[in-house]
Amino acid sequence: MNETPYQQLESRFRRLNALGEAEAVLHWDMSAIMPRGGAEARAEQLSQLKAVRHGLLCAAETGELLAAAEADAGGLDAWQKANLREIRRGWTKAMVLPEDLVVALSKACSACETVWRTARPEADFAAVAAPLEAVLALTIEAGQAKAEKLGLSIYDALLDDYEPDGRSADIDAVFADLESFLPDFLGAVLEAQAARPEAIMPEGPFPEAKQKALGVKFMEALGFDFDHGRLDISLHPFCGGTPDDVRITTRYDEADFTSSLMGVLHETGHALYERGLPKQWRGQPVGDALGMSLHESQSLLVEMQVCRSQGFLNYAAPIIRDAFGGKGDAWQTDNLHALYTQVAPGFIRVDADEVTYPAHVILRYQMERALLEGDMKIPDIPAAWNEGMQRLLGLTPPSDREGCLQDLHWYDGAWGYFPTYTLGAMTAAQLFDAAKRADTSIEPGIAEGDFKALFQWLSTHVHAKGSLMSAKALLIEATGKPLDAGIFKTHLKTRYLS
Amino acid sequence: MNETPYQQLESRFRRLNALGEAEAVLHWDMSAIMPRGGAEARAEQLSQLKAVRHGLLCAAETGELLAAAEADAGGLDAWQKANLREIRRGWTKAMVLPEDLVVALSKACSACETVWRTARPEADFAAVAAPLEAVLALTIEAGQAKAEKLGLSIYDALLDDYEPDGRSADIDAVFADLESFLPDFLGAVLEAQAARPEAIMPEGPFPEAKQKALGVKFMEALGFDFDHGRLDISLHPFCGGTPDDVRITTRYDEADFTSSLMGVLHETGHALYERGLPKQWRGQPVGDALGMSLHESQSLLVEMQVCRSQGFLNYAAPIIRDAFGGKGDAWQTDNLHALYTQVAPGFIRVDADEVTYPAHVILRYQMERALLEGDMKIPDIPAAWNEGMQRLLGLTPPSDREGCLQDLHWYDGAWGYFPTYTLGAMTAAQLFDAAKRADTSIEPGIAEGDFKALFQWLSTHVHAKGSLMSAKALLIEATGKPLDAGIFKTHLKTRYLS
Repeated sequence: MNETPYQQLESRFRRLNALGEAEAVLHWDMSAIMPRGGAEARAEQLSQLKAVRHGLLCAAETGELLAAAEADAGGLDAWQKANLREIRRGWTKAMVLPEDLVVALSKACSACETVWRTARPEADFAAVAAPLEAVLALTIEAGQAKAEKLGLSIYDALLDDYEPDGRSADIDAVFADLESFLPDFLGAVLEAQAARPEAIMPEGPFPEAKQKALGVKFMEALGFDFDHGRLDISLHPFCGGTPDDVRITTRYDEADFTSSLMGVLHETGHALYERGLPKQWRGQPVGDALGMSLHESQSLLVEMQVCRSQGFLNYAAPIIRDAFGGKGDAWQTDNLHALYTQVAPGFIRVDADEVTYPAHVILRYQMERALLEGDMKIPDIPAAWNEGMQRLLGLTPPSDREGCLQDLHWYDGAWGYFPTYTLGAMTAAQLFDAAKRADTSIEPGIAEGDFKALFQWLSTHVHAKGSLMSAKALLIEATGKPLDAGIFKTHLKTRYLS
Repeated sequence: MNETPYQQLESRFRRLNALGEAEAVLHWDMSAIMPRGGAEARAEQLSQLKAVRHGLLCAAETGELLAAAEADAGGLDAWQKANLREIRRGWTKAMVLPEDLVVALSKACSACETVWRTARPEADFAAVAAPLEAVLALTIEAGQAKAEKLGLSIYDALLDDYEPDGRSADIDAVFADLESFLPDFLGAVLEAQAARPEAIMPEGPFPEAKQKALGVKFMEALGFDFDHGRLDISLHPFCGGTPDDVRITTRYDEADFTSSLMGVLHETGHALYERGLPKQWRGQPVGDALGMSLHESQSLLVEMQVCRSQGFLNYAAPIIRDAFGGKGDAWQTDNLHALYTQVAPGFIRVDADEVTYPAHVILRYQMERALLEGDMKIPDIPAAWNEGMQRLLGLTPPSDREGCLQDLHWYDGAWGYFPTYTLGAMTAAQLFDAAKRADTSIEPGIAEGDFKALFQWLSTHVHAKGSLMSAKALLIEATGKPLDAGIFKTHLKTRYLS
C-alpha cells in the first residue's frame, strides 16, 4: 500500500525526532557524566547530528511532501492538521539557514561554552569576550535570516524558537507592569518580613546520599516514574533526556539541603510535563512540548505554587525532619515555610526568590535585545549589567562571576530565552489558580501529599495537549483568559503580605 | 580553495564517524545506566542513526568521490591510501544492503535482545526462539548479499565485519590444532593442579566501593586516563564509548572481588588500545581499531599474559591486601596466583579459564556456522549445545540459562564474532612473547608495577598503527611471523605445567 504524502512526512519526522532525541541524550551525558577529555569529540558529534538533521529537514523532498500533504489535508483530523502546521513552522524557519551556518553556530557555541566554564570561576569576562562575539555574530546572522522570512523583528524571530508565536510587544507590556509593581511591593515584603521572627537554617551536614533519597521520595510522591527517568548530578541543574527517559539533575550542598531539594522538585515539574505529552504523538512535532514558557510554568507550578506553599510543607516537614533526624525549631513547618518563602535581593538569578526573580529576567531581556539590535556591544556587557542590577535591585555584583558571567545562556547561544522564565512564573500562577477553582480537592490533597487531582487537571488541560494549539489558546481554554499579570501579583500579595 | 575528492571523502567520513560515535555513546548508556522504560525509544534512536549512516555511506556521491579519489591517488601518502582502501571496503559491503534491511535487522536485534533479557534468567529458550529466528533470517539475508558481492562463503562474509580479511579456512586449521591439543593438556593440568595445595578464596564481604577504588588504582597504574574515560557498572561488562571517551564497565560481587578485578583489567586492555589509536586519524576508517581479534588480543594481553602472571601479582598482592585489610594465607602472592590461574571446566564462557575457554569458542563457532549454512535450525540449538559441551568439556548444563542462553551475541545479531576471542588469545600470546624478547625491561617492569616499556612497545607496534595494514601483516611486522598456535600452546604449558 502506498503511503500518502502526510504519512511519508510522519515517517520523515519520526527520523528527525529520533536524531533529536539522540542529541538530547548526548547533551545530558555531556553535562552530567562525560569526562572532560571527551569535550572535543562530543562537540563534533553534536554539530554533525545537528547538520544531518538540518539537511534532512531542508531536503527538497521534505518541502514537496509538505506541500502535497497540505494540498490534500481534507481528510486529516485536528491533530494531524496541527502536526502539519507545526511541520510547516519548523520547516520554514530551518529553510532560511544554510547548513554551514548551523554547523558554525553549533561549534561556536561549544567553543564559547568551553571557555566560559573557566572564565566564570575566574571572573574573567575578557577571556570569553571574543568567543561570545563569534556566537552573537552568528546568532544575529541566523536571526536576521529568520526575521526577514517571517516578517518579524530579529528579537521576535529568535524568541519564536523558544516561545512559538511569542512577541516582544506582549512581553514589554507585562514586564512594564511588573517593573512598576515590584519595587514598592518588594519594599513592603521586606518590611513585613523584618517584622516576623527570622527564619532559622537547620544545621548540617546533610550527607549527599540522604539528600538524594529525600529528593527521590518526593519525586515519587509527585508521580515521577524511575522506570522512565533518572536523577543525577550536574553543575547546572536541568531537565534533559527524552519523554520516555527523562533525566533531571541537581547539585548537592552538604551544608544546606533546602536549595537542592527545591531544585529537584522544580525539575520534576519539567519532567512530569515531558512524561505527560501525548503518547500517541511521540516523535511528531504536534506531540512536542509547546514552548519554554509553558514548560517553565510546569516546573514553577510544582516548585513555587505547590511545594513552597504552607499546605505542601505541612505534609513535607515531618518527612524532611525524619530524613535527616532533625530536631528543634528549625525543623518546624512554619520555619521551613519561612525559609522557603524568604525574600532577599541577591546577585544570582538561579538563587533568587520569586519576588526578585523578574528583575533578573527583565535585566537580561533588555540587554539581549540591545545586543541583538546593535544598541549594545559585547565589551559594554559588564558595565551595563552592573548598572542594571543597581537600577533594578539596588545591588552591584562584587565581580562578573556574580554578574554577567553567571548564566550559560548567551555563551551557549540561547538568545531570546530569558523572558520565558517570568512568562512561565505568571502562567504557573494562572494555571494553578484555575486548577484549584476547577477542582477543590486539589489543595487539601497537596496538604496530605496526594497530588493525583492536581496532575489529573494538568494532564488534561496542559500535558496531553502537546502542541495541538498555541500557548495563548491553551491558556484561554484552560483558564478562561489570556495571560494576566494580575493573577501572579495576587499570588505574590497573598503569599508575602497576608 | 576547492577540496579534492579525497578531502571531500574525508569530510564525509568524519561525519559518518561522528554519527557512529553517537551510536556508541547511546549504546553504552543503554547498557550501563538507561532506565528500563527508555528501551523502545532508544531502539528507535539507534535504528534511525544506523539508517542515516547507511544512507550517507551509500549515497551516490560517496561512490563518485571514492572513484575520483582512487583515480587520483598518486599524490596520497601511505596512510591516505590505506584510508581509501578501508573506505572502499566499508562502502562495498554497505552497498549490498538496502536501508530497509539495515533498519529491520537493527530493530529485530533490539527486540530479540529485550526478550532474551527475560528469557535468560528464566531459562526459557522457547520464549526467545521466534525473535532469534527473525534475527537469523535477516542476518542470513544480509550475509548472503555480502557473500555474493565479495565472493566469499556466508560465514566468511559475516566474519569479515569483525575480522577484516579473516577466513574460516584459517580458523579451521588453528581450531583443529587446539581441539586435538586441549583435551589431553587439560587432563594433565588438572592432574598437576590436584597435586598442589588447593587455592583459598579470601573471605569477604568486599564492599563495592573498595572494589571500585582498587580497580581504579590498577587502571591508573596501567595508564588509563580518567580525563578520557569512565568505569561504571553493567550486567555484561564491556568496553564502549569512543577513543577520546572510553567507557568500561564491570559488575561487582561483594562475596568475591577476584572476578571483577580481573574483568576491569581486561577491559582496560581494550580501552588502552582505543586510546592509543593514531590521534591524527581520528574519525577516518584507517584510524579505527583493526578488528576484533586484535582488539581482544589487547585485553587478553593485559589480563591473561600480564595480570595473571606471577610477576604482576608480586606487585599487586600487597596492594590488593591493603585495599581490603586482608590477612593470612589467602592473601599471599602465591595463593592469589593459584586463584588466578585455577583451571576448572565450567558452563559459562565468561567465567572460563584460558585453558578451557577455547572449547567454549569452538562450540559456538561450529554451531553458528551450521546455523548460518542451514545445517542446523533454531529449535535444535539447546540439544546441540548440550551435546557439544559434553563432547568438548564433559559437562551438561543444568539448564539453558547456563547453556545456550548465556551469551548475548546471537540474540543481538553478532554472528561471526565468537572465533575472534580465541584468535585474540593466541595473538596476545604471540605479541607478548615478541614484546618481551624485543625489550627485556618489560617483564621486570611489570613485577614492579611499571608498565611504561610494555605500552611503549604496544603503542609502537599495535595501537598507533590503526588500520594501516591487515591484522596478518601487522602480526608479521610486529612478531616476525603469522599467527602461530604454537606460541599460545607454549604459554599454556609454561604457565600450567612447569
